[in-house]
Amino acid sequence: MRVASRVLVIGGGAAGMSAASAARRTDPSATITVLEHGTFPSYGLCGIPYYLGGVIPRGEDLIAYPAEEFISRRRIDLQLGTAATGVDLSRRTVLTATGATLDFDSLVLAAGAVPIVPPISGVDDPRVVTVRRLEDAIALHSRLGNVRRAVVVGAGYVGLEMAEALCERGIEVTIVDRLPRVLTTVDETVAALAQEEAGRHCSLRLGTGLVGLHPEPEFVRVELEDGEVLADLVVLALGVRPSTSLVPELAALPNGALLVDHQMRTSHEAVWAAGDCVALHHLVLAGPAYVPLGPAANKAGRVAGIEAAGGHASFPGIVGTAVVKVFDLTVAHTGLTLAQAQSAGMAAQATEITAKSRAKYYPGAEPLRVRLVHTPDGLLLGGQLAGKDGAAQRIDVVAAALHARMTIDDLADLDLAYAPPFSPVYDPLTQAAQSAQFARAKQEAR
Amino acid sequence: MRVASRVLVIGGGAAGMSAASAARRTDPSATITVLEHGTFPSYGLCGIPYYLGGVIPRGEDLIAYPAEEFISRRRIDLQLGTAATGVDLSRRTVLTATGATLDFDSLVLAAGAVPIVPPISGVDDPRVVTVRRLEDAIALHSRLGNVRRAVVVGAGYVGLEMAEALCERGIEVTIVDRLPRVLTTVDETVAALAQEEAGRHCSLRLGTGLVGLHPEPEFVRVELEDGEVLADLVVLALGVRPSTSLVPELAALPNGALLVDHQMRTSHEAVWAAGDCVALHHLVLAGPAYVPLGPAANKAGRVAGIEAAGGHASFPGIVGTAVVKVFDLTVAHTGLTLAQAQSAGMAAQATEITAKSRAKYYPGAEPLRVRLVHTPDGLLLGGQLAGKDGAAQRIDVVAAALHARMTIDDLADLDLAYAPPFSPVYDPLTQAAQSAQFARAKQEAR
Repeated sequence: MRVASRVLVIGGGAAGMSAASAARRTDPSATITVLEHGTFPSYGLCGIPYYLGGVIPRGEDLIAYPAEEFISRRRIDLQLGTAATGVDLSRRTVLTATGATLDFDSLVLAAGAVPIVPPISGVDDPRVVTVRRLEDAIALHSRLGNVRRAVVVGAGYVGLEMAEALCERGIEVTIVDRLPRVLTTVDETVAALAQEEAGRHCSLRLGTGLVGLHPEPEFVRVELEDGEVLADLVVLALGVRPSTSLVPELAALPNGALLVDHQMRTSHEAVWAAGDCVALHHLVLAGPAYVPLGPAANKAGRVAGIEAAGGHASFPGIVGTAVVKVFDLTVAHTGLTLAQAQSAGMAAQATEITAKSRAKYYPGAEPLRVRLVHTPDGLLLGGQLAGKDGAAQRIDVVAAALHARMTIDDLADLDLAYAPPFSPVYDPLTQAAQSAQFARAKQEAR
Repeated sequence: MRVASRVLVIGGGAAGMSAASAARRTDPSATITVLEHGTFPSYGLCGIPYYLGGVIPRGEDLIAYPAEEFISRRRIDLQLGTAATGVDLSRRTVLTATGATLDFDSLVLAAGAVPIVPPISGVDDPRVVTVRRLEDAIALHSRLGNVRRAVVVGAGYVGLEMAEALCERGIEVTIVDRLPRVLTTVDETVAALAQEEAGRHCSLRLGTGLVGLHPEPEFVRVELEDGEVLADLVVLALGVRPSTSLVPELAALPNGALLVDHQMRTSHEAVWAAGDCVALHHLVLAGPAYVPLGPAANKAGRVAGIEAAGGHASFPGIVGTAVVKVFDLTVAHTGLTLAQAQSAGMAAQATEITAKSRAKYYPGAEPLRVRLVHTPDGLLLGGQLAGKDGAAQRIDVVAAALHARMTIDDLADLDLAYAPPFSPVYDPLTQAAQSAQFARAKQEAR
């Protein structure tokens, strides 16, 4: 076993603290240091919209473990409020904002990602915010009582979650997106359901780009390509980019997401990485993809920490599974959309059905849209679900099917649970798979 | 293609009508006859408790398709109220209760199963009922208003569903079972949660056998090994046995369930079978098992019909997935319990955890019990879930994992959907798999 006496972790979020904790379990005698520029370690970032919306009472509720847990119990030198400002890979040192130079034997990069802010004037007005840091969310929370009108720029899942949160607080919300649709993580037919649902609660200004933000004393004038909206609050939800500017010499995707192997090691032998700053192996694409989500950050962080501390672990990859609540609708997806499969050069087609979420005679049965993406010869490439009932965990069945490289025949044959309160006798997934089989048989008959 | 001009189906339930419909699609010119002794074709048997409990308004709501759909649109000679009374396999004829003799080229046996009735006196009293036929349920429904006290004999899933239904109608319910526990389809620790939940609503008399039923003018005296209970209604929910007495020469399990191959063909070349009268190939046991449930009845019925009509199809098998609502609790299982694995001679162990069904800070998060059964080297053999939130479709993820012969490592690595309203960042299934990994690492370290 290689001795890794000094493990240094940049970033104290989910990936970084998972790495540090795993490193401690792997090597009880290592010196483990975490540099975190923020105030809180490892909090539930994804819970922020629910905190802002009033569903969760306190921002502190999102903190998984207090700093003391890491410092005292896990003996991790957690340095909060300490940014890393330079990394010298040849000397194996990291410089901090406080002027300290820290040596490492193993470095784990887990600096996460930063919200994308467009290069326009007005973005530094205090009424223009991004949703990422808990500190910012706590500050914003106290101000929401004075907000009457808000604009959310970006109709991806964070934008939709924020729109819902603001609506919950009684705020009039306009969602703006340059694209003519919401949620590019699912194909258009499924996104249309989310769009309809969001449109019941918010104004939608789609297909019109943000041109400028003009702060005035009483409001911010949000200038769009086709008009303007006045807002007391502007939320920028335009996605994130990996925080990897400290290590430009490491191999990365064009957006800066670090390339890693299954041990979460970067192109430098002493450097591992995990969380929202890395590209992960996508099992359906059979290549790296930037899908910055919580579960993989935790799991891959753990692998990075074990490896950085001299142990052995591996992270096989992701299939890109995610779920989002859009007001009363649940939208979930895994694998590739038809658009993604086609831009990856795959021969792909989609089968889409609407089924009931429960036995049709059982109260609470709701329409559930199921879309399967597959190759012409039936290999499953992805799935999408949207409905008010029964979408969330059903997507995980498709995810498991993708991990196992199942075909639509395999999916149709799965022995799924049935009882009237929970599903029809042919589960919606089974119905979708059978529909794909039927379409395929018809194609072959031609 | 073999010509099968006369396809005869015995039994017009889910399996029989699926077979007949599939036969029609396979061979538009075949003569397809279905003999059904009851009044209704293909109804949702599993919905009966919810109809009796008042959750579903009308018994007719359980009928998937009216007889006319089969007769006119699918051109199936559906003979309701017509029992088959004899089968002559060498002459390929079936005798009916009306004295007719029908010739067949292909026979599909889908006669289902009948409730087990113990050989004691009093079972023919009209206040002693079984739950199987919709006709009986409709008759019972109209009488429930006069029932104040009921005894349900049998604490399996039908017994628990019936107990809940009767409670919904304001009836005082006592559940009786010879075994000291409920739900033998799950291991004891998981069943204990269902037992606790049932005990909040009903009296439980477990570990005491039914000795006799003594009809008296005002009530039925239910005599138990350790006392007696007075009841206006006695529901026998002691399981079912396959209706296969017409074909004793076919290969079968000791309980009479017919053995079939993947084409649903019995040991006779011109006879297929499906539904609650057959044993299915159990993928985890790698052998036949009697698990009479709706989804497989439909799917295997379809395969039997296609094959009987000269087409080609196959039913790969089941993993024994099921879910039951026990008052406010959902209990689901798939694969083998620890007890089943051990009686099948497998080296098996179980890992059990309790996790939150959603992010712990999100409203509606409930404890979810997860039990995984696996071999000492990690091959997954089964899973059990119990909780008030998020159990139903999660079991299907374990079912998919069993179909794919995954290990606990594979399960731990599944890329499952996360958002605070739907799961913790480490899904309960992931947590359970990680706990199994941890237990295994500890064993290996010894």
